[in-house]
Amino acid sequence: MAKRREHPRGRVLSLLTDFGTADGYVGAMKGVILGLNPEVALVDITHELAPQDVWGGAFVLHTAHRYFPPGTIHLVVVDPGVGTERAAVVLDTGRALFVAPDNGLLSFLIAEERGEAEMGRQGDGEMSVGAGPVPIPPGWRAVRIAESRFWLPNPSSTFHGRDVFAPVAAHLSLGEPVDSFGPRMECLHAFSIPVARMLPGGEILGVVIHVDRFGNLITNLRADDLPQGPVAVEVAGSRIQGLSRNYAGGPGLVALVGSSGYLEIALPGGSAREEIGLGVGAPVRVTSGV
Amino acid sequence: MAKRREHPRGRVLSLLTDFGTADGYVGAMKGVILGLNPEVALVDITHELAPQDVWGGAFVLHTAHRYFPPGTIHLVVVDPGVGTERAAVVLDTGRALFVAPDNGLLSFLIAEERGEAEMGRQGDGEMSVGAGPVPIPPGWRAVRIAESRFWLPNPSSTFHGRDVFAPVAAHLSLGEPVDSFGPRMECLHAFSIPVARMLPGGEILGVVIHVDRFGNLITNLRADDLPQGPVAVEVAGSRIQGLSRNYAGGPGLVALVGSSGYLEIALPGGSAREEIGLGVGAPVRVTSGV
Amino acid sequence: MAKRREHPRGRVLSLLTDFGTADGYVGAMKGVILGLNPEVALVDITHELAPQDVWGGAFVLHTAHRYFPPGTIHLVVVDPGVGTERAAVVLDTGRALFVAPDNGLLSFLIAEERGEAEMGRQGDGEMSVGAGPVPIPPGWRAVRIAESRFWLPNPSSTFHGRDVFAPVAAHLSLGEPVDSFGPRMECLHAFSIPVARMLPGGEILGVVIHVDRFGNLITNLRADDLPQGPVAVEVAGSRIQGLSRNYAGGPGLVALVGSSGYLEIALPGGSAREEIGLGVGAPVRVTSGV
Repeated sequence: MAKRREHPRGRVLSLLTDFGTADGYVGAMKGVILGLNPEVALVDITHELAPQDVWGGAFVLHTAHRYFPPGTIHLVVVDPGVGTERAAVVLDTGRALFVAPDNGLLSFLIAEERGEAEMGRQGDGEMSVGAGPVPIPPGWRAVRIAESRFWLPNPSSTFHGRDVFAPVAAHLSLGEPVDSFGPRMECLHAFSIPVARMLPGGEILGVVIHVDRFGNLITNLRADDLPQGPVAVEVAGSRIQGLSRNYAGGPGLVALVGSSGYLEIALPGGSAREEIGLGVGAPVRVTSGV
Repeated sequence: MAKRREHPRGRVLSLLTDFGTADGYVGAMKGVILGLNPEVALVDITHELAPQDVWGGAFVLHTAHRYFPPGTIHLVVVDPGVGTERAAVVLDTGRALFVAPDNGLLSFLIAEERGEAEMGRQGDGEMSVGAGPVPIPPGWRAVRIAESRFWLPNPSSTFHGRDVFAPVAAHLSLGEPVDSFGPRMECLHAFSIPVARMLPGGEILGVVIHVDRFGNLITNLRADDLPQGPVAVEVAGSRIQGLSRNYAGGPGLVALVGSSGYLEIALPGGSAREEIGLGVGAPVRVTSGV
Repeated sequence: MAKRREHPRGRVLSLLTDFGTADGYVGAMKGVILGLNPEVALVDITHELAPQDVWGGAFVLHTAHRYFPPGTIHLVVVDPGVGTERAAVVLDTGRALFVAPDNGLLSFLIAEERGEAEMGRQGDGEMSVGAGPVPIPPGWRAVRIAESRFWLPNPSSTFHGRDVFAPVAAHLSLGEPVDSFGPRMECLHAFSIPVARMLPGGEILGVVIHVDRFGNLITNLRADDLPQGPVAVEVAGSRIQGLSRNYAGGPGLVALVGSSGYLEIALPGGSAREEIGLGVGAPVRVTSGV
C-alpha cells in the first residue's frame, strides 16, 4: 500500500455555518483566513443550516468531525447571539480544535466524550430548548476568546465569524498556543440531548433529532439501544417490521441503522419526511418481536 | 507567455454526488481524503443533483470532466443501490481516473469514447431507463473495488461514498496502482443514450437530455447532427426560426449550440423550462429551410 | 504571536458567478484553472446569485473583496451579454486583480475608490438600470481581454467563464503581466449607485440595495450618513426607534449598522424581507430625534 503522507497539525481547517453561500459571507471568512495562512486547506462541512439552527449545527458537526484528520481546526459559527454577552471559545480535545460561540454548538461533541449514561439518562427523552453549563470533560481544555490582538481591527458587532472566529482559527492553524487566546473556562454551554427511554416490557422510546437532505429521519436511538432479535419501529402511526441493511428496499418506509450509527426511518426512492409529515421532535417507538 | 507549472498525477481530485451540502456528508468524505492525502486539491463538480439522479450525474460528469487536467481523479457517487450487490469500480481511461458505483454513471463517458455510431443508432431516440452491461472500450482498464484494506474499517452499508469510495480515491491520488483495488472487469453498466433520429425528408428528431440551472433545455442533438443552412427547431408546439450565437437574443425562445456542443433551447432573460413546461424527455424536431 | 506566513502574489483566486452549483459549470472552470496552475488556492465567494443579476454580483464583490489578501485574483462572471460585443476586462487596482465582463460588475469597486461625492451625489437616490462608461480611477490599470492565445482553443460563444475568463485568471496567477492580455482601456462600465439624499430638516432618504440570506434589508446609507444622536428609521410604513448593536433584540424590526458598514433593517429570529414584503429598491427614511 502506498505510504500515507504525513499530516501536519493545522493543515486542514473546516467551516460549518448557517451563512448560506449566496452573500459572500463565507468567502470573506476564507479571505481572512488565507490572508493569515495561505497554506491551510479549507473544507466546507456545511453552510446550509437553517438560519440560527444551533441544534442542527451541533448534530452535523457531531457526525462529520470524526472523519477529519487529527489536528484539524473546526470553525463552527451559528451565532444568533452575536454581539451579546455570550462567550466565544477555543476548545482543544487533544485530537482536534474547535472555534465556536459558546451556545450549545459543541453539545453532541461533549456528549460523545462524556458518554450518554452521564449526560441525561435522567431525562424523559424530550428535547430541551435552552443550553446550560456543563463541566468540560477531563483532559480537554477550553479558553474564552478574549485577546483582541488576534481579531480583525474594529470588529463589527454582527459578524464575529469574519472578524473574530476566522482570524482566531487562522492563528491556531499557524501554531499559536490555545492559551494565547484568553483565560481558561471550566464549563461550556450544552443542550440536554434526549436519550433512549427504556420502558418496562422492552419498549424503547426515542425521538427524531435530524432530517437529512434525502428526507431520512434520524433518531436518537443507537444500534446499542435496540433489542436483540426482530424489532418493529413505529412512527406517526406507521409500523415498520424489521431492520433493513440499506436504502434499496421498499416499497414503503424502512428502518435501518444509518451511517452515523443512529436508527433512521427512510423511504427508498423518496422522502420519509414527506411521507410521514413529521420531522425533528417526532416520537419513535421500538418494540421487540415480529 | 508565463510557463505553465508541471501537473503532478493525482494532484486534483473532483467530487460529484447527490449528497447535497446541508448535512456534512460531503465534508466527511473530504475529511477522509485529506486524512490520507493532505496535499490533494479537492474540487466540487456538483453535489446538487436530484437525489438518486444517476442519469443527471452521468450527464454533468460528461460535460465537466474534459476540462480537468490529465491525471485528475473523479470521485462520482450517486448510489441508490448502496449496500446491494451492485459493483463499485475504478476506471482508468489513460487520461483520468474515475471511482464510482457501476450503475450507469459512466454512460456518457463510455459513449464519448465509443462514438455515437456504435452506441445506439439502432435506437429510436427514446430514453431507456435501465443500465445494461457494455464492453469496456479498448485501451481502458477497470477493476471491481474489492480489497477492503483500502476502505475505512467496518464500513457502513449505507454510505460507501465516505467509507469505500473516498479512501479508494485518496489512495489512488497517492499513487496506488489501479490493479491493487480488485480484479479486472470486462464490462461496465451503461444507459443506452438516445441519438439523433434522421427521418426521410431531412427531419431530425431529438430529445431533451438535461435542464440546467438557467432553465436551458439541452438536447441530444450535436452540431454535427444539424443540416447545413437555415433550420427551424420545434419543441412543445413552439417553432424557433434559425440558430442564435448566444443568449442575448429574443424576445421569445431561441435555439443555439451551447457550450457543451449540444443544441439547446433557451429563453433570453428567463427560463425555457418554465416557458415551455417540459423538461428531460421532451421531443425536439429540427427541419431545414426558412 | 505566531509569525504570519508570507503571501505570494496570485496564490489565492476567488470565484463569483451566477452559474449555480448544480450543473458542473463552476467545476469545469476550476478544472481549467488547475490545469494551468495546480498550486492556486480556489475560493468561492458565491455562485448563487440570481441568474444574470449583475447588480447583486457587484454588491457581493464589494462586501467580500476587501477581506482577501493582497495579490488575490477575483474571477467575476455574471454575463448576460456573453458572446455579444460587450468587452471583457482585466483590472489591476494595485492591491488585487479582477477578471470580469465590462457590464457593471465592478461598479461598487469603482465607487469605493472614487468616493461617493464624485460618483452620483447629483442623483436623486433612485436606482438606475443601465451601466454607462466612467473613467478608470487614477493609479488603476485596465486592459480589454483580446489576446486569444491565453484562451481555450475554439472558445464557445456562450461560456466565456470557462473558455476565456478562467484561463486568463489562471495565467495572471502564474505571473503573466496585465498588459499581455490586450490593449489599455480608459473607461469601464458602471451603474450609478444611489447615494443618501439629504433633505431640508435633517431627513435622509435611502434605498434598499441588497437582501441577504437571512432576509436582512441592506440599505445604501452608511454610518457616516446618519445624524448624530437618536434616530428613527421608517420603511414600508414601519417605524423603528433607535439603532441596535446586534441581531439579538426585538421583538419586531430592528435597525443597525451591519458588518459591511451599511444601515440594515433586520427581524431578530426572522426575515425582515418577509415581514415587510419589500426588497431591493424599497425606500427608507431616517429622521433625527426620539
